[in-house]
Amino acid sequence: MSEGTARPAAREVRRHKWWGWGQDDVSFRYDNKPAFVPLARTKIGIDLEVAQPGPEPDLARLEVPATTLPEEVRGRLAAVVGEDNLVLEDEFRVLHSFGRSLPDLVRVRAGGYERLVDAVVYPGSEAEIEQILRIALEQDLVLIPYGGGSCISGSVTPDPAETRPVVTLNMGRMDRVVEIDETAGLARVEAGVYGPDLEEQLQERGWTMGHFPDSFTYSTLGGWAATRSSGMQSDKYGDIEDIVRGLRVVHPRGVIETKAIPGRDSGPSLHELVLGSEGRLGVISECTVQVHRVAPVRQVIAYMYPDWEHGIRGMHAIARSEVKPTFTRLSDGPETEFSLAMVKAPTSTKGKVAAKVQDGLFAYLRSQGWDTSEEMCISYVCFEGTKERVEREKAIVKKIVKRNGGITLGAGPGAIYDQKKFDTPYLRDFLMGYRVFGDVCDTGASWSMINEVHSTVYDAFHAQRREVGKPGFMFCHMSHSYHGGACLYFTFAIPYESEETALEEYYGAKNRVQQTFMEHGSTVSHHHAVGTEHQPWIEEDITELGAEVIRGIFAQNDPGRNLNPGKIVSP
Amino acid sequence: MSEGTARPAAREVRRHKWWGWGQDDVSFRYDNKPAFVPLARTKIGIDLEVAQPGPEPDLARLEVPATTLPEEVRGRLAAVVGEDNLVLEDEFRVLHSFGRSLPDLVRVRAGGYERLVDAVVYPGSEAEIEQILRIALEQDLVLIPYGGGSCISGSVTPDPAETRPVVTLNMGRMDRVVEIDETAGLARVEAGVYGPDLEEQLQERGWTMGHFPDSFTYSTLGGWAATRSSGMQSDKYGDIEDIVRGLRVVHPRGVIETKAIPGRDSGPSLHELVLGSEGRLGVISECTVQVHRVAPVRQVIAYMYPDWEHGIRGMHAIARSEVKPTFTRLSDGPETEFSLAMVKAPTSTKGKVAAKVQDGLFAYLRSQGWDTSEEMCISYVCFEGTKERVEREKAIVKKIVKRNGGITLGAGPGAIYDQKKFDTPYLRDFLMGYRVFGDVCDTGASWSMINEVHSTVYDAFHAQRREVGKPGFMFCHMSHSYHGGACLYFTFAIPYESEETALEEYYGAKNRVQQTFMEHGSTVSHHHAVGTEHQPWIEEDITELGAEVIRGIFAQNDPGRNLNPGKIVSP
Repeated sequence: MSEGTARPAAREVRRHKWWGWGQDDVSFRYDNKPAFVPLARTKIGIDLEVAQPGPEPDLARLEVPATTLPEEVRGRLAAVVGEDNLVLEDEFRVLHSFGRSLPDLVRVRAGGYERLVDAVVYPGSEAEIEQILRIALEQDLVLIPYGGGSCISGSVTPDPAETRPVVTLNMGRMDRVVEIDETAGLARVEAGVYGPDLEEQLQERGWTMGHFPDSFTYSTLGGWAATRSSGMQSDKYGDIEDIVRGLRVVHPRGVIETKAIPGRDSGPSLHELVLGSEGRLGVISECTVQVHRVAPVRQVIAYMYPDWEHGIRGMHAIARSEVKPTFTRLSDGPETEFSLAMVKAPTSTKGKVAAKVQDGLFAYLRSQGWDTSEEMCISYVCFEGTKERVEREKAIVKKIVKRNGGITLGAGPGAIYDQKKFDTPYLRDFLMGYRVFGDVCDTGASWSMINEVHSTVYDAFHAQRREVGKPGFMFCHMSHSYHGGACLYFTFAIPYESEETALEEYYGAKNRVQQTFMEHGSTVSHHHAVGTEHQPWIEEDITELGAEVIRGIFAQNDPGRNLNPGKIVSP
Repeated sequence: MSEGTARPAAREVRRHKWWGWGQDDVSFRYDNKPAFVPLARTKIGIDLEVAQPGPEPDLARLEVPATTLPEEVRGRLAAVVGEDNLVLEDEFRVLHSFGRSLPDLVRVRAGGYERLVDAVVYPGSEAEIEQILRIALEQDLVLIPYGGGSCISGSVTPDPAETRPVVTLNMGRMDRVVEIDETAGLARVEAGVYGPDLEEQLQERGWTMGHFPDSFTYSTLGGWAATRSSGMQSDKYGDIEDIVRGLRVVHPRGVIETKAIPGRDSGPSLHELVLGSEGRLGVISECTVQVHRVAPVRQVIAYMYPDWEHGIRGMHAIARSEVKPTFTRLSDGPETEFSLAMVKAPTSTKGKVAAKVQDGLFAYLRSQGWDTSEEMCISYVCFEGTKERVEREKAIVKKIVKRNGGITLGAGPGAIYDQKKFDTPYLRDFLMGYRVFGDVCDTGASWSMINEVHSTVYDAFHAQRREVGKPGFMFCHMSHSYHGGACLYFTFAIPYESEETALEEYYGAKNRVQQTFMEHGSTVSHHHAVGTEHQPWIEEDITELGAEVIRGIFAQNDPGRNLNPGKIVSP
């Protein structure tokens, strides 16, 4: 164990409930959201006034296969990390065997586990990771690095056919900001730190990394780097590949470090080879990241457009303008409808007045020919900087929105967006209680293809729902603007018939969406990694030969297939 | 040959004179630069009033070994590209065997060639490249892709010990902008296009790529991508790895395409593996690049700081501010002195008045305690955009400069900088005529280390000059600002004793500089690639294991070592 440094014990490391998202005592509530019940009834066919949710999963009722970790290996691992930091308990093994995709949630609740990880080991230092990796190679173990386990790509799940012992390396004890270079604006950070703990350590010294993916509360820096994560503020702060400037990775033959120095003209980028490698080239132990002074002023302003095409024109014009917002987001008609249905009933006088004002505004918009129930699109733009800059940029954006047929709603709805942003994953667990899947698919699209991708995905999804004769609700937003295009982020909800057919029903819808991305030149995922879930499309995405090159790199660096085998490309 | 498309013939492709930079009829003149003669005398010991330049090199006086290309292979290659596009003439073979580093210029002029390329083939399409690559693999040829041949890294030079036939693939006939997606701001461009021809095709449609390396007139898009080039406007437009969003590369087993779509979450980045690969993974045939509307207003403003430390503080403050200039550049004291010595004597009345004003200003600055001969530092900042934006940003920068002890000189000196920017390489040929080497070394440094790297490089260089008892002149500028740091670009001039000892004398100085970069955590090169010249430091730069990983990737993709072997990492 590393000396002289107090680290959290394995059991203190933040973790999800074994069967769902996040903490045990947090769940989605609809009793304070009056518009949610009718929406659930009309769009996905649940009548919340009648239907009763299924019982909460109970691990005691499931059969959990025993660990296959040989006693000798157990002893060697414990000698490295200490007995307290090697956990073989059922609940931990079950939790660490799944991410948080819909198929994962189905499988983890259903039991009948084909293959679970055999042990969870919590290293406390890079040196310990090196020792564990050495043991894994000597003993022919499979090693799966694990950050927050929030992935929806299957990246942390062992291959069901794996016959060797599987050990998950939970990085959560390595949770420190080691050093901030205040001159360069670069921080050295251990890879196991969770989003909130990272930002707390940075913000208490006046800095922020500015990376806020939806999974923020249950994901880690190393996980973001290993899966090429994007945060909602990427317009300003960049995707994780822009933020992580240097890293250290424990490779089967030692430690590789990439320098956090601008201008890396040192041949093909090793750095970009490790980013997105999902543990197949080694274990990321540390990242050097760009940090920024917390902006003095921050405002989220909401806008409304009459329809998607006007909205996209506005978003593109903002991306092309001299303004540099922190984020830009456009919900399409269905997502706008959903957002409005998620608004809590006002309780204060001020809230009631605001609701009245909104009703009046929508009535006015209808009088102007807007379709306020299905077509209009809400948009949020976040501004950060000095007061003067924020005011100037707001004024420019206001004009752009107006020129593209939209109106400015103001800071009130924007503030609501900013508060609830990390809560959406809890909704999925709630829906599953009523046999409804809610999940997401995202892709990158160029500005010239974005409307076509948007509309054909809807067509494909609804065609699939008609084929199976079941309802389905889909909505979408555009976010993460770049020079050449943006991310389209689709959310869908479909009821399913039974636990037995659940996965088949799920993939029927999801695969149709993914295939549509491919057919329109888009990427297999904008920021949700490949893992096993997106692997069927990897050859279409990066060409067959490109996949062969990546496969060759994994084979050469990990010939024994000990490092998270089967992820990204098989084998 | 590709059908129905008129391509330039091989001999029409832009090329350098065989023994130096650029065109035959352009050379450096000092008769109109009155301050140059005394500077040359005091700093590098050439008395231009006495010394006579050596004679211009004459290829007829050198022995050129015959091509070793077997007749059968010659025929097969000619069948692919046409007889006109396969060139075996001495002058072409000599030219294509060297880049434009100082050692290259010494070697190309000295003759006694150990190894020249055996043929230069000019493909006209990606399909032809595929066929040539197939022949190379079947016949065990070495294939070296060649853009403009401006590299200073040895990247286009065959290994002297190579016993197999060596064929250079000159990409210059593939010179077209294929398509501009005006909505997405993305252009598909053939890889062989030279800088000026690319910008001409883009600008006639109102677009620019914004990439202007010093080598611009004699370098190509594919060369930039294969060597991770940076242009002087990278602050706004990005380095080539930011500009090239997608590419096609002819690999030994087929064509790999990376999508020009934002958000590539498809595992390790193949795209970033090909960028900087210097031909070792295949031949880049096409790039999809970001293009921008030509800005309505462009201004370069000059500033002066009392010394380097004040200047760096100003540059860093600009980088941290809300301003986004097109470029920012700070010359140190010696470079400022050199720049002023390169100014032409005024001939117009207006010019004479400006010179008087400058003399008066410098006198005033001296009265304020400035050292105007050795310490003061000139800085250039380029602003682009709407008139309103340019004015606003100029006002902000003016304040930042003042706060950091500098003064604003205005647009006059800035315009001079903008005009002469691509002429510097001709100076090197001029100096060699007097047995003086002029060359460059560049590195990336973090903002917190930049002053230390700057001063220790000077110390190391001058210590080396004292050790050998010879004069040496060094100057430096900072450019290419990033969040975490910037590029330091050192230029040095040293006289050499004789042609026989020239290379040893050169490496004595250059290696000391490179080693100093390494000892201070900087990179082996900011944007001048690795090739063979920077290979001695690659393991220090990317770790020994990192170099081993890269070596393994080359071995796996090109097991026969047919693709530009020996570059970046040996073998």
